[in-house]
Amino acid sequence: MKSVFIVRGKYLITMNKKDEIIENGAVVVEDGKIKDIGEFTEILKKYKDSSIPVYGNSHSALMPGFINTHTHAAMVLFRGIADDLPLKQWLIEHIWPREAKFLSPEFVYDGTCLASLEILKSGTTTFNDMYFFTESIAEAAKKLGIRAIIGQGVLDFPTASGKGADDYLKKASEFIEKYKDDELIVPAVAPHAIYTCSKETLLKSKELALKTSVPIHIHLSETFQEVEECIKKHGKRPIKYLRDIGFLEGRITAAHSVWVNDEEIELMAEHGVGVSHCIESNLKLSSGIAPVARMIKKGVKVSMGTDGAASNNNLDLLEEISIAAKVQKGVTADPTVLNVKTCMKMLTIWAAESLGLENQIGSIEIGKRADMILMNLRKAHLQPVYDIYSTIIYSAKASDIEDVFVNGVPVVLNGRHQFVDEDEIIEKALWWAEKIQNS
Amino acid sequence: MKSVFIVRGKYLITMNKKDEIIENGAVVVEDGKIKDIGEFTEILKKYKDSSIPVYGNSHSALMPGFINTHTHAAMVLFRGIADDLPLKQWLIEHIWPREAKFLSPEFVYDGTCLASLEILKSGTTTFNDMYFFTESIAEAAKKLGIRAIIGQGVLDFPTASGKGADDYLKKASEFIEKYKDDELIVPAVAPHAIYTCSKETLLKSKELALKTSVPIHIHLSETFQEVEECIKKHGKRPIKYLRDIGFLEGRITAAHSVWVNDEEIELMAEHGVGVSHCIESNLKLSSGIAPVARMIKKGVKVSMGTDGAASNNNLDLLEEISIAAKVQKGVTADPTVLNVKTCMKMLTIWAAESLGLENQIGSIEIGKRADMILMNLRKAHLQPVYDIYSTIIYSAKASDIEDVFVNGVPVVLNGRHQFVDEDEIIEKALWWAEKIQNS
Repeated sequence: MKSVFIVRGKYLITMNKKDEIIENGAVVVEDGKIKDIGEFTEILKKYKDSSIPVYGNSHSALMPGFINTHTHAAMVLFRGIADDLPLKQWLIEHIWPREAKFLSPEFVYDGTCLASLEILKSGTTTFNDMYFFTESIAEAAKKLGIRAIIGQGVLDFPTASGKGADDYLKKASEFIEKYKDDELIVPAVAPHAIYTCSKETLLKSKELALKTSVPIHIHLSETFQEVEECIKKHGKRPIKYLRDIGFLEGRITAAHSVWVNDEEIELMAEHGVGVSHCIESNLKLSSGIAPVARMIKKGVKVSMGTDGAASNNNLDLLEEISIAAKVQKGVTADPTVLNVKTCMKMLTIWAAESLGLENQIGSIEIGKRADMILMNLRKAHLQPVYDIYSTIIYSAKASDIEDVFVNGVPVVLNGRHQFVDEDEIIEKALWWAEKIQNS
Repeated sequence: MKSVFIVRGKYLITMNKKDEIIENGAVVVEDGKIKDIGEFTEILKKYKDSSIPVYGNSHSALMPGFINTHTHAAMVLFRGIADDLPLKQWLIEHIWPREAKFLSPEFVYDGTCLASLEILKSGTTTFNDMYFFTESIAEAAKKLGIRAIIGQGVLDFPTASGKGADDYLKKASEFIEKYKDDELIVPAVAPHAIYTCSKETLLKSKELALKTSVPIHIHLSETFQEVEECIKKHGKRPIKYLRDIGFLEGRITAAHSVWVNDEEIELMAEHGVGVSHCIESNLKLSSGIAPVARMIKKGVKVSMGTDGAASNNNLDLLEEISIAAKVQKGVTADPTVLNVKTCMKMLTIWAAESLGLENQIGSIEIGKRADMILMNLRKAHLQPVYDIYSTIIYSAKASDIEDVFVNGVPVVLNGRHQFVDEDEIIEKALWWAEKIQNS
């Protein structure tokens, strides 16, 4: 028997090429995919079977699930353990020693479960992860029913999770082989950064990604210091260096890209490199403010990432985009940049394009996977609604997302996950926190 | 019979002079005031009567209600009507024509009801309002059970609500007389700004405030252009001008203060002028970024304001402080500024001091008014908790505030207002929105 249901909304925000919004619209979902779209009354006439469940109502907004293009989900177990510190001190004194001590398949599994719960409940249906013990990440994501692009971290030095570049690449290769046809998991290769990967490691990563047709995920030009070091070592700025060694041929999502000049922005646009803008992490660690408005103007696909919750300290894309929009207006002195429609694209279709998943997710269109969310608009802080995009970007909160569908499965309804024990996941987090705090 | 109840929390965050946090603490409230504070088990022993209601539980954080030091509550009815525009275009084409058309006692009452609902439910128990038809503001605030400092706007020109400076001042005087002993309403005088009030109007406003011992609320140095105009007209920068004419003698809360130099910051500190930092509005309208870290260093009491929801587009102080903290770190390149403890002070006790209400609200101390809020920490996005201040400032959302007490009255419990019909308030907003949209 086929699994069929209908989702309706006062506003059906498609994010399709015409930016259509259907008032009192509805979507028919069948076997994980979007089968039909139209006005609710028309859809009801076409699909008369009264046994078909209908989600949503006349005061909800229905839209594509958000896509988080840069995070390290499991690091949520370090949320708030050290704040208000410079990046180096934060990493060296607080994060790295604890990662060295606690990083394990169990840590990654439990952390990713907690993170996935937060991610889903804030309206994000896909996250692009870079971390270690990818099997554990995949298991957690599948348990929670969330879509995940999972990039095996690749470094030139050993960690608790691998012996060095070739070992990480071997793991990446095995993970890709295992998950290449999975409906929820998209395997990826994640060379960590220019300053942690040699030219050879970067190129091997790219070759693996090209050979297996998977996306690449890399940290790029997050800090000023990183750019200076690259110039010193390689005689050129990071993006030019990557272009010159032939790395930019892959399908790349570059995280941060705070310190990029106009020439580099043009190179990124030319090579289709997507940028994951992580404004909260960049501000909180005083890394700087990426020239996002300029990137968009030059044609770079910019999407939003939360980074790990250790540096943010949340995985909430609605907060991230609201800050991003306001900060760009503030620093460019131009209030017209990152307008509400652009912001919606950054959260959805541009993110899908950056990851190479635009044929599957990122908009509500017939044939695509049914990754959708419902926002309840009947709340004091969301009224009145003059422009639904504005309501979503500037007024709504994570908690206004009450229903979440991933791959055609109702995963969260009325704010509760439908098939995991939320308390159990929180208890596990408390158990880890006690261990970590007392270490 | 006396009204007595107990509120407990896993963390009782006092915001007293010693910054005490009592683990598993509790507060005894009697007739609107805080009667006792201590460990929950001790409090239970002292107050054995089992008929005393107990709010909160072992996974809540109990803290003083937040204080919003700059808003125009009723403007919430214009929320999202025009975004992503320069300040002048936004004001001249969208806001002023609509204010001219719709501003009335009914508009202000209904708008303030909607705003108060949002304000309360996001954990703010006091707001400092500047608008017109102050009687309507007061009625709405009292109906919703929220504390409000209500400043009659004073301008040199007529509006739908008054004929000119002397008329506004007369209204202010009458309003002060009527509400001077009210338990929830604090009347104030609100000369709008230097560019809308003559020297005489400013001084008459100050004299009225001094004579009646009420606070002053003014817009100050919000835009660069405003400062330039002041220099052109008065031969000096705004704060120096105000000092020289003798305006700074009052108890002043200055909204925005984006464009202030070191000399002006020192003048503000010297005269005890508090600053209401409205970072979201300032960014969204591209007004600039106030040098808040420098102000705090020089001893200026900085608190947070949301501004009106027309320019923000929300009245949520937790979002405001989170952005403020991150933006200051970003623009000063110093991640240690606006640390989580400072941020908590900005939301509570510093705001009370700015308004001259530090003996009544702003901290949980015996004898003060019981304005307190409970945050539910048992949620995926709030765990783990390593530092409760960090959890509140960087991870929590408005929706995590589930119970709100104002003046010893449980106004919101489990996220629902206890004595107004929320639907009715929202319906009224929808009615206004339709009128406004079709105008």
